Amino acid sequence: MSRSFVVAGAQLGPIAAAESRASAVTRMIELMREAAARGARLVVFPELALTTFFPRWYTEAPAEIDRWFETEMPSAETRRLFEAAETLGIGFHLGYAELTPEGRHFNTAILVDAAGRIAGKYRKIHLPGHREHEDWRPFQHLEKRYFEKGDLGFPVFDAFGGRIGMCICNDRRWPETWRMLGLGGAELVCLGYNTPLHYPPAPEHDHLQYFHNALSVQAGAYQNGLWAVAVAKAGREEGCDLIGGSLIAAPTGEIVAQASTTGDEVISARIDLDRCAEIRANVFNFALHREPQDYALITAPRE
Amino acid sequence: MSRSFVVAGAQLGPIAAAESRASAVTRMIELMREAAARGARLVVFPELALTTFFPRWYTEAPAEIDRWFETEMPSAETRRLFEAAETLGIGFHLGYAELTPEGRHFNTAILVDAAGRIAGKYRKIHLPGHREHEDWRPFQHLEKRYFEKGDLGFPVFDAFGGRIGMCICNDRRWPETWRMLGLGGAELVCLGYNTPLHYPPAPEHDHLQYFHNALSVQAGAYQNGLWAVAVAKAGREEGCDLIGGSLIAAPTGEIVAQASTTGDEVISARIDLDRCAEIRANVFNFALHREPQDYALITAPRE
Repeated sequence: MSRSFVVAGAQLGPIAAAESRASAVTRMIELMREAAARGARLVVFPELALTTFFPRWYTEAPAEIDRWFETEMPSAETRRLFEAAETLGIGFHLGYAELTPEGRHFNTAILVDAAGRIAGKYRKIHLPGHREHEDWRPFQHLEKRYFEKGDLGFPVFDAFGGRIGMCICNDRRWPETWRMLGLGGAELVCLGYNTPLHYPPAPEHDHLQYFHNALSVQAGAYQNGLWAVAVAKAGREEGCDLIGGSLIAAPTGEIVAQASTTGDEVISARIDLDRCAEIRANVFNFALHREPQDYALITAPRE
Repeated sequence: MSRSFVVAGAQLGPIAAAESRASAVTRMIELMREAAARGARLVVFPELALTTFFPRWYTEAPAEIDRWFETEMPSAETRRLFEAAETLGIGFHLGYAELTPEGRHFNTAILVDAAGRIAGKYRKIHLPGHREHEDWRPFQHLEKRYFEKGDLGFPVFDAFGGRIGMCICNDRRWPETWRMLGLGGAELVCLGYNTPLHYPPAPEHDHLQYFHNALSVQAGAYQNGLWAVAVAKAGREEGCDLIGGSLIAAPTGEIVAQASTTGDEVISARIDLDRCAEIRANVFNFALHREPQDYALITAPRE
């Protein structure tokens, strides 16, 4: 399989609380068709792509929360997405809230190959936000309440002719995420995000949200010599502005495609997985230049 | 001691092989005077600031190499720099080649307080380049031949009213460096570099050298919520072009000062160490949000 191909990111505009999964899937299929028309082999959808970003609301009632979660994948509502992908011959990456048969809740992403088979799964490790209701916030960010920390590590999958990793939203800010994926051999990292423009604990940085998104992804790509496709759910959703700025970054850290709206929008670029070696065989040749014996604090248990 | 103060970077233009240490020190004192005139409490000089960047030449004769090294600090030639600092009431950071009484060679940086006392020392851990002569290169990069890997870890020092860390040149590209310093509590990282504009193993990236320098420093500052002062030896030195681009980055990753030449040039900015908390108490609250149990590969011995 050729290692040079087109990838796409399918940024989604806002999804209202009242919008059905069927409606979201219809929008996603339309974006998938555009991606396929551009020749994309893989299209990346955002984090929690099927519903509104529900961690902004507090509740103590489990049933109220569980309605945002998927208990099977594909489900009745998402089967059309898998079928469309198979028909179009395109793979995809999808973020969704996962409720397991054991009653465990994860913020999850899957990689689906062009035959409609789930080729990989990741569960978000760096959960941001807080656990309890905080009155002073104009909106909540309760990921630490509603999700368990991912239990799958940072897996890397053989797919699309290369080695593919995933991470989710806040994971992208942590260089440890990218390094774990890089050490695992990832050549392409897919990720989705829902990032409020307003960050209540430090509003003096709100104007930097797009910069911090790009900086984190570009640094992660460069410092590990891999491609990255980072895709937003964007726009004003239930009164909360989410940033756009979906982007594709090269192993050099250069941005090769970027969204210019905060609505439904496809971005795409031709990538060549063989180009990872330009970085990984040179400046970031891990075997030659890393010094892990000097990094002990990084894996020391947190205080 | 106030935690808001002016810091300066003193970028140096090229130093010819024939230029004496006395001449380099005279240039540095002139830059130090300008930094002091701007009210700086601390001025950062580059890596290997006293001589030309000698790892570009191969030799098998130890004596030929040892002449680039300092056997004491301050030395006869550098004492004037310490005295000028004391007179001006300014501290400084200095990179130099260190030859110990035991005959060990390190690429070293020291932090000197405003009373002229050495407050901290760091020895470069991420040595780039190669060990043997490589004919195909237009110039060599023999740091792995001429220096031993640093044996002091990534120490952080109480100085200048805060916690100060150091790293050197290639160290800045590695997120592990910044994380080790961040976990050690650093609020300000000083670093110098000698970065050839032309990178022989991957010349297709030569146009990205300034971008990669800034990306690495900005990401390291943001992802650890600390200030960074990164200072080049720049310009055409013995036929080899070195990048400039000296910069000061805020804990937000923003560039607050940047050099605009490849010669001797002072940059400066007022920094407030208390601003580190804007990042470290929030997005990058390590105690709340890091997941070290999932980072095992990062400290696994390299293969």
